[in-house]
Amino acid sequence: MEHSPVDAQPDAQSVSSASSHWTPFDRTMMQRCIELARRALGRTSPNPLVGAVIVRDGAMVGEGFHPGAGQPHAEIFALRQAGDKSQGATIYVNLEPCNHYGRTPPCTEALIAAGVAKVVVGMVDPNPLVAGGGIERLKKAGIEVVVGVETEACRQLNEAFIHRILHKRPWGMLKYAMTLDGKIATASGHSAWVTGQEARRYVHQLRTACDAVIVGGNTVRLDNPHLTSHDTDTHNPLRVVMSRTLDLPIDARLWETADAPTLVLTEIGANPDLQHQLVNKGVEVIEMTPLTPAKAMAYLYDRQLSTVLWECGGTLAARAIADGTVQKVLAFIAPKIVGGITAPSPVGDLGLARMTDALTLEQVSWRQLGSDYVVEGYVS
Amino acid sequence: MEHSPVDAQPDAQSVSSASSHWTPFDRTMMQRCIELARRALGRTSPNPLVGAVIVRDGAMVGEGFHPGAGQPHAEIFALRQAGDKSQGATIYVNLEPCNHYGRTPPCTEALIAAGVAKVVVGMVDPNPLVAGGGIERLKKAGIEVVVGVETEACRQLNEAFIHRILHKRPWGMLKYAMTLDGKIATASGHSAWVTGQEARRYVHQLRTACDAVIVGGNTVRLDNPHLTSHDTDTHNPLRVVMSRTLDLPIDARLWETADAPTLVLTEIGANPDLQHQLVNKGVEVIEMTPLTPAKAMAYLYDRQLSTVLWECGGTLAARAIADGTVQKVLAFIAPKIVGGITAPSPVGDLGLARMTDALTLEQVSWRQLGSDYVVEGYVS
Repeated sequence: MEHSPVDAQPDAQSVSSASSHWTPFDRTMMQRCIELARRALGRTSPNPLVGAVIVRDGAMVGEGFHPGAGQPHAEIFALRQAGDKSQGATIYVNLEPCNHYGRTPPCTEALIAAGVAKVVVGMVDPNPLVAGGGIERLKKAGIEVVVGVETEACRQLNEAFIHRILHKRPWGMLKYAMTLDGKIATASGHSAWVTGQEARRYVHQLRTACDAVIVGGNTVRLDNPHLTSHDTDTHNPLRVVMSRTLDLPIDARLWETADAPTLVLTEIGANPDLQHQLVNKGVEVIEMTPLTPAKAMAYLYDRQLSTVLWECGGTLAARAIADGTVQKVLAFIAPKIVGGITAPSPVGDLGLARMTDALTLEQVSWRQLGSDYVVEGYVS
Repeated sequence: MEHSPVDAQPDAQSVSSASSHWTPFDRTMMQRCIELARRALGRTSPNPLVGAVIVRDGAMVGEGFHPGAGQPHAEIFALRQAGDKSQGATIYVNLEPCNHYGRTPPCTEALIAAGVAKVVVGMVDPNPLVAGGGIERLKKAGIEVVVGVETEACRQLNEAFIHRILHKRPWGMLKYAMTLDGKIATASGHSAWVTGQEARRYVHQLRTACDAVIVGGNTVRLDNPHLTSHDTDTHNPLRVVMSRTLDLPIDARLWETADAPTLVLTEIGANPDLQHQLVNKGVEVIEMTPLTPAKAMAYLYDRQLSTVLWECGGTLAARAIADGTVQKVLAFIAPKIVGGITAPSPVGDLGLARMTDALTLEQVSWRQLGSDYVVEGYVS
């Protein structure tokens, strides 16, 4: 939540400063930080997306973003670009500067050494164990710190990172495309395509921002998808197939690992012949029993992944929801009617007997994409 | 299509005049006609919705609307209110004035007798046999006639009437409410409620504008609906139940005919005991074999109905679409997920094997109603 001037509580002891310190210019600079941070979408896990801008005498003198784990943080790139002009300058950064030695030295020390006069922070570190530490360190060094500019946008930018830190699991998004009568395919399983080009392009961009996409065996058998970002970006997510039986075709597009890496999750001892063939094609195969969405997500968390897109059919989608592995739903709706009593719909059995038991989405947005709509909402 | 000033073709011989004759004031007056016409929504069938405004020296001196079949036309009410001020005045009317003796004398003669100087017409009569006749009569009497102001809005106002005239069938609309995962009820059949109050209130208003609403036996058994406009208006549509077997409960709300009339369509000889009981409760029962949506609509056409709302489940909805009795779809979507592999979706089998065979809706609009959305589109 963003502080409004009305309820702001100026408090010298607090890490938050009064909102009256913010100006429209501050907001614009923070939006620029977010813009910079997004250049590394899909590439920073398990780290957050961070951008930084340095301003002196009303002019931007340096900017940068964190390009990926193991590389310098956004503040360092911005300081390098600003050089001597950092002295007495203001730095904007969407996330509280770190105050600990990880793979890189703490940014707080770099900011102090560069002589910056003021630090404007979008949001405090979501990790309750370290939250506010960086801000305290800067204040003790005599630097003015303002916290809370464009906080909601900063939170949204890093919703996956925040979830990962707080819940020790990747952020799960369920995406599906359906007709206006709620079908994701015809009764015979044909589904190409439900939505138009603009919606499909949006999905390709979405994949670019994800660390992994997951489908079930049925999607591989029926749709034979690529699950890449196609030509919209060079980054492709890890493509994950969950299949307990491993009853899968040997010639699926997902086994073409030159395009993007593929990981198959299956149960112990399932179809050893196919496992062998897949490994020979460069596909990674991991066995776990029982294979559940929750266990798959725990495994992907351990592999340092933050953002996972469920692009599966209704049966696996229902299991993913029931397992608590879906935090956000992205539903694409095409204004067409295809019918079919046995035609599949996006979510299988959740065991809900009454309409009043339905999961209500929160913070729902509806947006037009060509002739289709995308509905985005959060699972409460 | 509305004429734009660019492509207008002034032609003294044509019934259409140049669009350069229209002013923003003309548009405002035509919108007022539509507003007046809508006061009789649901009450004029088989007649159209018509409103009229008389203006002299820039001031409205009379207005009226057609309240229902057998009663005077809109022009007559407006002329009565204007009295002597009709002399030399301009009259606006959304539909071409009639030029024939029906249950009332022709409006053209009344306008000529009243000495109006100019008639501004929203759209020409849709009946190709009489289209332009009223305009010709007025012109011959030396009255200036302008045609085509707000034509698209005028057409939309009377889309049911136009369809009725051109196709000799009622205008069919399919309405349903579904979750974001395409379910109209849970697997156990529970459906109260999918959408919130604002969407449901909109449906009540929609019923007010309809001559009839149709459901199947399953909806009566599972939902036991009222199908009235509730307290939003005094007008209720004719409630129609289509049931081939007449395997229906004896205590359904639809049999309470004090609220609104109910018509049951069934096949010849079905459940004579129930037929007898229903008739005793004031329900009208009509037998036809085979009972199909097309035959039901033909029957309702003969009964002078124009606008019919299909509020049925997926099986009857699919049959209604396949029979060509649905011209418009109104889909209400609630941002919630209920799941269920066997939970019903809005449209049953249409026999379409490929997604590319789906019926694409045209002129689609998406509109928010509380937390829900309503999608309206036309079947091509």
